[in-house]
Amino acid sequence: MADPIRRLVQELARLPGIGEKTATRLAFHLVRGNRQQIEDLSRALLDVTEKIRLCSVCMTMTEADPCTCCADPRRDPEVICVVASPSDLVAIDRGGHFRGRYHVLHGLLSPLEGIGPDDLRIAELVRRLGASEVREVIIATSPSVDGEATAMYIARTLKPLGVTVSRIATGLPVGGELEYSDQATIGRALAGRQVL
Amino acid sequence: MADPIRRLVQELARLPGIGEKTATRLAFHLVRGNRQQIEDLSRALLDVTEKIRLCSVCMTMTEADPCTCCADPRRDPEVICVVASPSDLVAIDRGGHFRGRYHVLHGLLSPLEGIGPDDLRIAELVRRLGASEVREVIIATSPSVDGEATAMYIARTLKPLGVTVSRIATGLPVGGELEYSDQATIGRALAGRQVL
Repeated sequence: MADPIRRLVQELARLPGIGEKTATRLAFHLVRGNRQQIEDLSRALLDVTEKIRLCSVCMTMTEADPCTCCADPRRDPEVICVVASPSDLVAIDRGGHFRGRYHVLHGLLSPLEGIGPDDLRIAELVRRLGASEVREVIIATSPSVDGEATAMYIARTLKPLGVTVSRIATGLPVGGELEYSDQATIGRALAGRQVL
Repeated sequence: MADPIRRLVQELARLPGIGEKTATRLAFHLVRGNRQQIEDLSRALLDVTEKIRLCSVCMTMTEADPCTCCADPRRDPEVICVVASPSDLVAIDRGGHFRGRYHVLHGLLSPLEGIGPDDLRIAELVRRLGASEVREVIIATSPSVDGEATAMYIARTLKPLGVTVSRIATGLPVGGELEYSDQATIGRALAGRQVL
């Protein structure tokens, strides 16, 4: 394989979920394809390093500061949804079910990986609650071990501030089959049952 | 989502086998990661457009002309393995079973897609056979409809030149289960049986 192609394969294979075979397929697709596509991709890559920074309000990745979400007057400033990452923010916002503001932690507490409260943007969240009128904080971290621990920690931290702290529901996914669900999920779905 | 990130997602999603969700995951991974990785990937992309050309002998993609394979004196110049694409060449060469030379067609005959013999590098193969001493041409196109048709066409074209034309075997893959194999593969495996 020619050296430039081999280097491109190596760089592509460093991306998560892309092994050497997929990287090879992608590299040859790009080399075979038109030059414009490669230049567009290269430019898009450099653009994100040059133009993206953190929103000074919600800590998400943004081009403008404050971000479009924090600058949107139609969004309820009294409800803040706390997420682990900008991609989680995008996942929630795509649905359009939530019209409040966000706060991005940039990670989850993980004693095993040595990630403590000071590594997350929790201090910024506390400062934000002190500076503005917030009614409710919805903690939307994943229902994983680290996600749950982070939710508990934040709930304890925010309690003294007199704000309502809630947690997104855990249960069977829409379209999920009871038969194939794990016991932990079924247990949580039962515990979180709602009166009809 | 910030515009530069959205553009990066769009560019990544144009790659084959990468949908919008995967592209979003990759984009956020890159933005979150170190700047150096993005610059390396961007450089690798531009390098392939600037440095890669076709080898004037075997038509594969190469930085040097002739390519390392055609320039290697230890490789048997009397056996040529014909493949559809540079990635097929890499796939075969990775195994190390073949120590001859290659010829890349850059496609397969496909009447449905309007790809005829003139769109492939068949004329270059014929010229090559006329200019050098070649004992055998192994046609290593995939055993698909287009691959078989291309193999048949090349075999007919090369016959008058007095060169041995062979075709790679079709049958059960190593580790494959007879029970789960399709009828066409089993039929070909039976037809191609070898005396032990």
